[in-house]
Amino acid sequence: KSDWKVIVLVLSRPVKDMESRASTYPMLPVDEALEIVLQEAKSLTIGTRTVALHEALGRTLAEDLLSALDLPQFPASMKDGYCLKVDELEKTEGKTYNVVDTVLAGRDVSDLPETIPVGHVYKIMTGAPIPKSCNTVVMVENTTLLDSDAEGNEISISIQTPEIHEGRDVRQVGSDIKEGEVILKRGETIRATEVGLLSSCGISSVQIFHTPAIGVMSTGDEVKDPSNTSSLLPGQIFDANRPMLMAMLRQFDSALTIKDCGIVEDESKVLFNAIQSAFDSVDILITSGGVSMGEVDLVKKWMEDNGKVHFGRVLMKPGKPLTFATLERDGKKKLMFATPGNPVSSYVTSVLFVLPCIRVLLGKENAKHPVVEAKLKHSIRLDPQRPEYHRAT
Amino acid sequence: KSDWKVIVLVLSRPVKDMESRASTYPMLPVDEALEIVLQEAKSLTIGTRTVALHEALGRTLAEDLLSALDLPQFPASMKDGYCLKVDELEKTEGKTYNVVDTVLAGRDVSDLPETIPVGHVYKIMTGAPIPKSCNTVVMVENTTLLDSDAEGNEISISIQTPEIHEGRDVRQVGSDIKEGEVILKRGETIRATEVGLLSSCGISSVQIFHTPAIGVMSTGDEVKDPSNTSSLLPGQIFDANRPMLMAMLRQFDSALTIKDCGIVEDESKVLFNAIQSAFDSVDILITSGGVSMGEVDLVKKWMEDNGKVHFGRVLMKPGKPLTFATLERDGKKKLMFATPGNPVSSYVTSVLFVLPCIRVLLGKENAKHPVVEAKLKHSIRLDPQRPEYHRAT
Repeated sequence: KSDWKVIVLVLSRPVKDMESRASTYPMLPVDEALEIVLQEAKSLTIGTRTVALHEALGRTLAEDLLSALDLPQFPASMKDGYCLKVDELEKTEGKTYNVVDTVLAGRDVSDLPETIPVGHVYKIMTGAPIPKSCNTVVMVENTTLLDSDAEGNEISISIQTPEIHEGRDVRQVGSDIKEGEVILKRGETIRATEVGLLSSCGISSVQIFHTPAIGVMSTGDEVKDPSNTSSLLPGQIFDANRPMLMAMLRQFDSALTIKDCGIVEDESKVLFNAIQSAFDSVDILITSGGVSMGEVDLVKKWMEDNGKVHFGRVLMKPGKPLTFATLERDGKKKLMFATPGNPVSSYVTSVLFVLPCIRVLLGKENAKHPVVEAKLKHSIRLDPQRPEYHRAT
Repeated sequence: KSDWKVIVLVLSRPVKDMESRASTYPMLPVDEALEIVLQEAKSLTIGTRTVALHEALGRTLAEDLLSALDLPQFPASMKDGYCLKVDELEKTEGKTYNVVDTVLAGRDVSDLPETIPVGHVYKIMTGAPIPKSCNTVVMVENTTLLDSDAEGNEISISIQTPEIHEGRDVRQVGSDIKEGEVILKRGETIRATEVGLLSSCGISSVQIFHTPAIGVMSTGDEVKDPSNTSSLLPGQIFDANRPMLMAMLRQFDSALTIKDCGIVEDESKVLFNAIQSAFDSVDILITSGGVSMGEVDLVKKWMEDNGKVHFGRVLMKPGKPLTFATLERDGKKKLMFATPGNPVSSYVTSVLFVLPCIRVLLGKENAKHPVVEAKLKHSIRLDPQRPEYHRAT
């Protein structure tokens, strides 16, 4: 782990040796490069804010949440049926019971008598509170209606189940969640089931982490926007990277602020101004193009002159020219990822480096991508030197 | 497969036998119940529309898309380096070459001469078009600069690689995509990489399937909204289901139209009006509560009176009381899922039945959930009769 800290130091003063014709940036293994990115991301401050629960879907919790109540708050019936008082393992089969009242869900049962006479039951519905005189529930399917009055109100029933015990089909107070219990922790993602859990505990607003603002820029004289131009001049190509990376970010987290920084030509003044002004409104800038060994690889030059380049080549295929720098703007730290112009390279490097970086900023515990072992359906001839990254389905 | 068709027929005229005290709805296996839902969903018409590519993320394509162009449109250099004309396996090591010009990306090379003299090269950048006089590329790392003029323009280089062959590091016309090739098919989901692919082919708008409008309603006198009430009266509970199911739908597909149909009390006139008016604006209604064996299970009654109930019980735990009906409104077919009031039951049945149903409406080929085998970390005592559904992480 101490190795790469030295490398970073060396990297911060890159010198281009034009004679040797090879990049002077050492090729960092993917793991080392990612570790640098994650460390740098940790010192960015993004902040938190409080939002209504329904706006918190997919966001990361910035606080521990405790339940202010027991769940359920009252002993509740788990079935439609009858509630009664039994001693342990009472024989009930074939016995007759008088139905004294019906308890619907939502009823306040505190006004009901403290005791219920032997041989009497309340009819009770799922979710309704168990009167304090009762301690068990028999579901309707295990009973027979014996008698009812002219309006159809039940008078008496018999029970078909051999014996019933105390607490059967009763949800006890606090059996799901106890008052004061931590129900969700800082750093957890709020998904649909968490929304349900919080709502059932009466929580209607939560503190979440802000999301970073991320800019996406394509560079290159030859790159054209298909929504502006329907046909290309010789040598030109349609821009794939900017719409693709913006879509990838939106797909990853729809709450991110994503800024379209346009297609910028390979002219140093124009390009440098575009990058400068992008950083007025973004925390992270992703560019594509201009980082290879070419004469107009101005993006890398801007990074060297205006920030601290942490690495300029990565031992991977595709994506070798990926360059990562940090810079300061008005006392605030900003990150810049310069990805190669090839769409596959740009996509792979953005997925492998930018997404884990965003996860750190969002307050996630596990920022790195999960690793899944898979079996290839066909063999692949691998690059002898660089680990390869392929799309798998 | 013919079995359940008969069952559907029987189910369409359900009779509640109050004496037997058990539901008269047969308990359908999950697979059979799901098959009914998917069949019914197939006859709902949702329609298509054309949107800008950046609005199509996550949507389902309603048309086959063909590329209008070859990709690349011109032979392009894959490296920064030099292009030249070679005969097969030409020995190049140590040979000296004169640099005649530099070809940047985006340049129109049609004005360059048809032939290049032996011993001459163009300097060329990644993505730049190969002049028609050349047929191969040598990357800059495999060359040495021998001579340059006062302004730094290169005059001559030597090549360090032993032999090079025709087409090396050249992306040939149409090698990625051929003109007229189907690049995406109807029913495919447009994700970030598809956005990149379509954009690089110059496609800026696409025809997608409409998304259905889905309403979510909680029922029950005891159910209260935590954003309206911070404390509960005895017997009351906070609503978990409606915010949870709405979040689940949004999480599943943010393009769905999701309608909050509120919390409705167990009073037949109020409830029936609420369901009726919900169907004015939704294709699918999901309710929770009111489908068990209780006295106020009015949701099931509304379905029986106003639609065709396809099943009223499912052999599963939790979720047994799940009820599914179809109905007609102004000549348009609508679907209704009445889930149990318990949050876990409501969630499980919505995930297992409603999501695959939505996938059918979105034009997906594989509507069913993928099945993944998993190893339990602890043993579970299973229900002897009903297959159980548990949350796994």
